[in-house]
Amino acid sequence: MAFIVQKYGGTSVGAPERIEAVADKVKGFVDEGHQVVVVVSAMSGETNRLIELAHAIDPKARGRELDVLLSTGEQVTIALLSMALARRGCAARSYTGSQVRILTDSAYNKARILDIDQARVRADLEAGRVVVIAGFQGVDAEGHITTLGRGGSDTTAVALAAALKADECQIYTDVDGVYTTDPRVVDDARRLDRITFEEMLEMASLGSKVLQIRSVEFAGKYNVPLRVLSSFKDGPGTLITLEDNTMEDALISGIAFSRDEAQLTITGVPDEPGIAYRILGAIAELNIEVDMIVQNVSAEGLTDFTFTVHRNDYDRAMDRLREVVKDMSAREVVGNTRIAKISLVGVGMRSHAGIASKMFGVLGQEGVNILMISTSEIKISVVVQEKYLELAVRALHDAFDLARHPEERTDLPNA
Amino acid sequence: MAFIVQKYGGTSVGAPERIEAVADKVKGFVDEGHQVVVVVSAMSGETNRLIELAHAIDPKARGRELDVLLSTGEQVTIALLSMALARRGCAARSYTGSQVRILTDSAYNKARILDIDQARVRADLEAGRVVVIAGFQGVDAEGHITTLGRGGSDTTAVALAAALKADECQIYTDVDGVYTTDPRVVDDARRLDRITFEEMLEMASLGSKVLQIRSVEFAGKYNVPLRVLSSFKDGPGTLITLEDNTMEDALISGIAFSRDEAQLTITGVPDEPGIAYRILGAIAELNIEVDMIVQNVSAEGLTDFTFTVHRNDYDRAMDRLREVVKDMSAREVVGNTRIAKISLVGVGMRSHAGIASKMFGVLGQEGVNILMISTSEIKISVVVQEKYLELAVRALHDAFDLARHPEERTDLPNA
Repeated sequence: MAFIVQKYGGTSVGAPERIEAVADKVKGFVDEGHQVVVVVSAMSGETNRLIELAHAIDPKARGRELDVLLSTGEQVTIALLSMALARRGCAARSYTGSQVRILTDSAYNKARILDIDQARVRADLEAGRVVVIAGFQGVDAEGHITTLGRGGSDTTAVALAAALKADECQIYTDVDGVYTTDPRVVDDARRLDRITFEEMLEMASLGSKVLQIRSVEFAGKYNVPLRVLSSFKDGPGTLITLEDNTMEDALISGIAFSRDEAQLTITGVPDEPGIAYRILGAIAELNIEVDMIVQNVSAEGLTDFTFTVHRNDYDRAMDRLREVVKDMSAREVVGNTRIAKISLVGVGMRSHAGIASKMFGVLGQEGVNILMISTSEIKISVVVQEKYLELAVRALHDAFDLARHPEERTDLPNA
Repeated sequence: MAFIVQKYGGTSVGAPERIEAVADKVKGFVDEGHQVVVVVSAMSGETNRLIELAHAIDPKARGRELDVLLSTGEQVTIALLSMALARRGCAARSYTGSQVRILTDSAYNKARILDIDQARVRADLEAGRVVVIAGFQGVDAEGHITTLGRGGSDTTAVALAAALKADECQIYTDVDGVYTTDPRVVDDARRLDRITFEEMLEMASLGSKVLQIRSVEFAGKYNVPLRVLSSFKDGPGTLITLEDNTMEDALISGIAFSRDEAQLTITGVPDEPGIAYRILGAIAELNIEVDMIVQNVSAEGLTDFTFTVHRNDYDRAMDRLREVVKDMSAREVVGNTRIAKISLVGVGMRSHAGIASKMFGVLGQEGVNILMISTSEIKISVVVQEKYLELAVRALHDAFDLARHPEERTDLPNA
C-alpha cells in the first residue's frame, strides 16, 4: 500500500465524461489498496469564463474579490469528482483550500503556501475515504480566500504531498512525461524515465511547460518524488527525484528552448562602475524581468551591454532604454525580437568537461551563429536567430544521441 | 442613518449589467448615510447550469457534494458585486456563508440556520464597508458547506437582519410589492402598502410566490420589518410588519389562489374510530403532504372522506388509496385534478363575522359551485372547479372592493 497525491489539470477534468474517466482511474488505485488524495484544477475554460465575467464589471479586476471569484472554479470540480467517486462506491470527500486548511500569506492572486493542516485529510484517509482537494487556492490567517496564481494546482499537490509525507506526487497532464526535447520539433524525442529536480527546474524555466516551476522547487526542497503522467493513456511517465547513481550515465538529459525572448543592446556605453545597475535598474523599475545578461570587454573606454527580456516586455523596455541612452551618453540602443534561446540541460555536465565546446561545434557545423551564451552548473544556453531554432535543436539532439537510452549511448564529448 | 439588509435575487443579478445596476442602487443608500449589508443569490440560470453538471455525473446527485457545488453560484455573485461597488468608490467586502459564519445544522440541501457570527460584519460596517454576503448557504459545526434549499437567500437576509438587529430587511424582486391578488388575473389588483406577517404567511403558503415562507416565519418570529420592492423600478414596495392600528380598517388584505392541488375522495367508508388515521397514515408513508381535509357527516354508518394533495403527488396517492379502499371495505375512490383553491386572507376577519357567508354568496351568484371549505383565524379557503378560477377571483376582488385603499372602502360584510 502506498500513499499517493494525484493532481489532474483542467483538460483532464474538462467535461463530465472526463471527470468520470478520472474517477475510474482514482478508483483503480483505491482498489489496489492505495490511499489517494486528489488535487484538481478548474474545468478547462472555466477560469477564463470567470475572468471574462470579472472584466465585464472591471477590466482591471484583481485583488481579494478576484480570488473569491476564481476559487469557485476548482470548487465545482471537487464536488463533481467526489460525486463521480461516490457513484462508483468509492467514498470520497471534497475540500476547498479554506476547508482543508491550506494557509497562505495574504498576497491575493499570487499567494504562497505557509502551512497545511493535516488533521482533516488524515482522518478521512483513515476512514477509508478518497480526499478531493481544490488546487490553486488557500486561505490567509484572517480567513480570506486566496489563490496561488495560474497553474498553482501543481504547487498545491506538491505541498500536500510534502506536508503529508506522501510516497509519490503524481501530476496528470495531457503529455505522458518529460521528453528530451519538444516532440513537435524533433521526431525521435524520447520520454525520460527519470530526471532530477534541478534538471526539471532548468527545463521548466527554459520553456518546457510540463510543470510549474514553483511546484518543482517545492518538490526538490522537500524531496517529494514527483511523477508526470498522461491522464489520457497509461504509462510510467517521468519520475522527478533527487540525483542518484542510476542517473550518472547521462551527460545531457534534454534540450529546452524558448521563442519568448527578445534582445536589447546598448552600444558605446562609457565603461564606468555602476553602469549595469543604471541600465538594469531602469528596467527593474518597470517590473520587467531580465534573463540573460552579457557585457562585452571594454574597448577605448566604451563597452556594449546586452540583455534579454520576455518578448511581451520588449516595447516598454526599448522605450525606457532610449531615455537611458541619453542620460548616460551612450551611443545607441538596438533590439532584436527574432531570437530564440536553446539550452542543454544535464547534471552530468558537473563531472564532464567539453560539453559546451561540443555544442558550439555542432552549431558551427550547421552554420548557426551564436548571439549570446550563458552557462550554469547543469546547463548551457545560447541565443540564436529564431529562424535556426528547429535546425539547431535537431542537430544537438542527434549529436548528443538523446533519442537513445543513456545506457546505449556513446555521448562522451568528442571536443 | 439606518442599518439596512438588502437581498437581490437571481434575475436582479442575472448579468454583469444587472449587477452594475444593483451596485448603483446600493451606492445610493450608502451615499445617503446608511449602513448596508447585501445578500445575493446566484445569477439566474447559474444554479440550473450547476445542477445539469451534477446530473451529468449522477442523475440523483444530492447530499454534501451537491452543496459544495451549488454554493459556488452565490460566491460568483458576491465577488462580482463587490468589484462593481469598489469600482464606484464604495468599499465593499464579500463573504461566503462559511466565512461570515452562518452556522447551520448538517441537513445538506435543506439546512436550517442556527446562529450567525456578527463580529466580522460589524467590524466591516464600522470600517465603512458594504458587506456582501452569499445567500442560500452556510456551514455546519464541522466546517462542511451547507445550503438552505432553493430560494433560501430570503431566509439568509432575514436571519442576518434579525441577528444584527437591522432597521429593515429589503427584499428586491422582479415585482414591486405584494398585491391584493395576482395582477395577471385581476387588472385592478392593488399593491398593498402594508401587510402583517401572518397575512403574508397565508398568502405565501396559498400560492403567492413573492417571498419564501421560511423567511416570513423568521421575520415574524424576530419582528424584522420586511419590505418587498422591485429591483428594476423605484417605489415604496410593501412593508410586512406586526399588526398595528393602521391596519384595522382592512377586513381583507388579499386573495391568494393555487392551481397546484388535486382532490381525492374515498366514498362509502365504514364510520369507525381511526379511519382518518388509516387513510392519511397511508399517504403520509409516501411522504405526501395533505392540505385540506373534509369528512362528511355519516349516513347509515358510512361516510365520505375527501382531501387534497399537490397535483404532482396525485397519481401516487391514487394508487395507494385503491389499496386502502380494499383493505377497509370502502366503496370506491374518486379523484379530481381540475380544481383550484381560492383563499381570502385578512387579520380583520378576527374581529368581524360574516366574511365567509359574503364570500359564499358572491360565488353562488356567479354560479360557482364550492367543492370544499376550510377556515382559519385569518383566512377562508374554498376549492372550486379550476375553470371557474379567474371568474371567482375577479368577483371576490370586486365584492370586497380590494382595488380601493382600505380607508376609501365600504367593505363591511352585508351578509
